[in-house]
Amino acid sequence: MSTSRLELIALPGLPLVRPGDDLADLIDAGIAAAGAALADGDVLVLAQKIVSKASGRIVDLRDVTPSPRAKELAEAVMKDPRMVELILSEATEVVAHRPGVLVVEHKIGVVVANAGIDHSNVEQEDGSEYVLLLPEDPDADCRHLRQTMADRHGVDIAVVINDSVGRAWRNGTVGLALGSSGLPALWDLRGHADLFGRTLEVSQEAMADELASAASLVQGQGAEGYPVVLVRGLDCPASTQSARALLRPRDEDMFR
Amino acid sequence: MSTSRLELIALPGLPLVRPGDDLADLIDAGIAAAGAALADGDVLVLAQKIVSKASGRIVDLRDVTPSPRAKELAEAVMKDPRMVELILSEATEVVAHRPGVLVVEHKIGVVVANAGIDHSNVEQEDGSEYVLLLPEDPDADCRHLRQTMADRHGVDIAVVINDSVGRAWRNGTVGLALGSSGLPALWDLRGHADLFGRTLEVSQEAMADELASAASLVQGQGAEGYPVVLVRGLDCPASTQSARALLRPRDEDMFR
Repeated sequence: MSTSRLELIALPGLPLVRPGDDLADLIDAGIAAAGAALADGDVLVLAQKIVSKASGRIVDLRDVTPSPRAKELAEAVMKDPRMVELILSEATEVVAHRPGVLVVEHKIGVVVANAGIDHSNVEQEDGSEYVLLLPEDPDADCRHLRQTMADRHGVDIAVVINDSVGRAWRNGTVGLALGSSGLPALWDLRGHADLFGRTLEVSQEAMADELASAASLVQGQGAEGYPVVLVRGLDCPASTQSARALLRPRDEDMFR
Repeated sequence: MSTSRLELIALPGLPLVRPGDDLADLIDAGIAAAGAALADGDVLVLAQKIVSKASGRIVDLRDVTPSPRAKELAEAVMKDPRMVELILSEATEVVAHRPGVLVVEHKIGVVVANAGIDHSNVEQEDGSEYVLLLPEDPDADCRHLRQTMADRHGVDIAVVINDSVGRAWRNGTVGLALGSSGLPALWDLRGHADLFGRTLEVSQEAMADELASAASLVQGQGAEGYPVVLVRGLDCPASTQSARALLRPRDEDMFR
């Protein structure tokens, strides 16, 4: 990798995203507002919340009826049983739980607290209790946007969808890649030489996750959020790999 | 946070670091070679290996005598017993192990495979088996460099020391902060408002880790490595927090 300079530009002026919005249109306007134009090798990092909103992944908790299992688990973790029902319906496995936290493997393969379901930054109506679910297929969303930008502008870019997630052993959240298209999400350096010409033994860099974290630094999380970040200067080959390459197979995982 | 543009510049022309080298001198030369000058608010991210080398954290495996416990564990994980002895001597707790991997809590508090001990990128002499240990007190190393740069150039910068580490649940390594000084390593957004004026409930961003990951994208890991990255444009207050803020207390951790 010979990258030596990287620029991250948070796109200004993006409006609140609503179900049915065309994200490519909004991003094109944002890039123009930043005085930029997409070029080959650029990476767009999109916050999960705008992808989920655009595709209508919104549920009103008033419409959720908790199952007996959800009620039981809700008592153990001291959460709203309707929320636990939603979490379980989005999950393939409960990885760990304790009061306040329910860590699951989401259907998309990511291990994440509360199945990534979020109350924050969701617009409410009178009496509504809307929450936002993760996208159903974030890799497909990335591929789709990448193709749209290729069709519209003739450029070969990469796209990552990120979310802020907690981790084992450490406080605080970091940006993580839920979806990826167009770059080696898991950059394989095995076989490359080290500084002294010896072969690197174990070296796979989770590049899509590192991009997700880098973008998170300029996205913000509250009222001043910038959900789309343009990353310029990343020097890596195009790739057909998706963010699924980042999922450790269950039988190789020591922590569940 | 109102950051909207971030630049990462890998410093060119840094020589191989040897025990006793003055990192501040090397970094000053690198910044000059990049045509830049340090300014208030800049962040320097240093790869762990150069900090460890400069402070002489090098051990020759030929000088290590494995204890009975190290021999036993070495058999279970199929590793060199001398390496296991070193790992145990650097660790406060064995968190998990299986053939090929020994995950421990390092004395500095980070949970990391093989206590972060590395064979790669260490210069060898005739017959030597040198390996590199993590710095003894990376937070202190960061504070020291921050102060040196303040004394030399009259600037208020932040410093992070990063390393590439593996994680639970996911493939590949990401840059993680071993040490930090001068910025809110764990940025606390609780109490801030979301897009719709409601208070964010849970939102602590592991900013030093995200910086560590961002820098890793331009550092490279092999022969073309750039161990020092200048990050410009991060908008956050100065802080006396260290990277210890990122360590989840054992009794709050569900994964050990």
